[in-house]
Amino acid sequence: MTYCVAMRLADGLVFASDSRTNAGFDQISTFRKMHVFEQPGERELVLLSAGNLATSQSVISLLERRAGTDIANVLNTASMFETAEIVGQTMREVIKRDNPDGKLHQVDFSCSLILGGQIKGESHRLFNIYPEGNFIEATEETPYFQIGESKYGKPIIDRIVNFQTTLDRAYQCALISFDSTMKSNLSVGMPLDVAIYRKDGLKPCFTDRVEEQCDYFHTLRQQWHQGIQELFSSLEPPGLG
Amino acid sequence: MTYCVAMRLADGLVFASDSRTNAGFDQISTFRKMHVFEQPGERELVLLSAGNLATSQSVISLLERRAGTDIANVLNTASMFETAEIVGQTMREVIKRDNPDGKLHQVDFSCSLILGGQIKGESHRLFNIYPEGNFIEATEETPYFQIGESKYGKPIIDRIVNFQTTLDRAYQCALISFDSTMKSNLSVGMPLDVAIYRKDGLKPCFTDRVEEQCDYFHTLRQQWHQGIQELFSSLEPPGLG
Repeated sequence: MTYCVAMRLADGLVFASDSRTNAGFDQISTFRKMHVFEQPGERELVLLSAGNLATSQSVISLLERRAGTDIANVLNTASMFETAEIVGQTMREVIKRDNPDGKLHQVDFSCSLILGGQIKGESHRLFNIYPEGNFIEATEETPYFQIGESKYGKPIIDRIVNFQTTLDRAYQCALISFDSTMKSNLSVGMPLDVAIYRKDGLKPCFTDRVEEQCDYFHTLRQQWHQGIQELFSSLEPPGLG
Repeated sequence: MTYCVAMRLADGLVFASDSRTNAGFDQISTFRKMHVFEQPGERELVLLSAGNLATSQSVISLLERRAGTDIANVLNTASMFETAEIVGQTMREVIKRDNPDGKLHQVDFSCSLILGGQIKGESHRLFNIYPEGNFIEATEETPYFQIGESKYGKPIIDRIVNFQTTLDRAYQCALISFDSTMKSNLSVGMPLDVAIYRKDGLKPCFTDRVEEQCDYFHTLRQQWHQGIQELFSSLEPPGLG
């Protein structure tokens, strides 16, 4: 499984993904699920992927191979909307290649993607691209998307993040969301990849690979866990009749 | 959907369930998912159910109809283990009645159950009964089971509850677990049913129906939400390069 989250905030975009891939419990690997396409001054795009690794890798490979050619590709679109269309279309193409008759198999070929970024001339935007290749866009009321193993880490985001949340606080919340997820589910694992895009910069994202031994993350996890226990103890328990 | 949780602790057992049932988004109802079988001084049994309501209602009806008769039933078993066997067998019987050829249908006939309680002569015990009718038992290392929409509310239980947690604190933690779940998922809804069994009493559980306007729950939710936000703000955010 996988867990990825991305947020579109007033100040920019925050992306985070884990790196665990498993085909059964005895075949666990580390794969990066975050891919960046950039043309400084022109566009900055980040893609997060969850689901079938063969599908998502093929989608990324095709997007990379076509970037810079004459055909419509992620580096020559005029808008994030068009970019999302190309990514969705490429996903349909790969799934059709691997499952041409569209039959139900024991294997699930589908994957989900999050696409975010900014193209010169428009604002920063964020899209959730479904396995069918169609997509929805984040708004101020719903400023974040999750894909993969998303439920464990959703409550903390719902309590903390809104469109006005600053980029550093949103990054901090994403790390706590990953901590809660990894505590409860073995299929999401370290290291984490993080990318933070400050709006209108059209400059490469701040990126980080958060490893198990990362000081900041280690301290945050400890302080959060202890803080939750102290908060819990500070509240009055219910009476038992 | 549904969310139920039950914990087996040193002092006894804590059970909680929501009451929302939905067949599609336009057919939402309130059904109790907690059922008690009792013989004061002899046994106290609590069943929680999630999944297909037709299946779980039939299972409960058959268990009730047979209780007190001469055939093996939940009121004449000598152990919790035998009781779990009867419940599992009854579930298989109902699923076979409704889906005799065992074919895959568009409708999912399955349900999951949690059975906990105590029978005179042995300790208090807790079982998670799978849709196939087989079951596992809680231990000191793994003192709780969840069924239904369990992921949102799992991290807080993993952070707080262990075998030594007191009954009132475990009840408090279950309420927070429901709060987190209901904030993020519409298919789990109020009111909640709670039952608390103090071990070796062989007396009826303390029970409560927690409604939306319940003072304690309302205050707890507010204090928890505010406490989480304050804890989050008190921790240093990460640097952005």
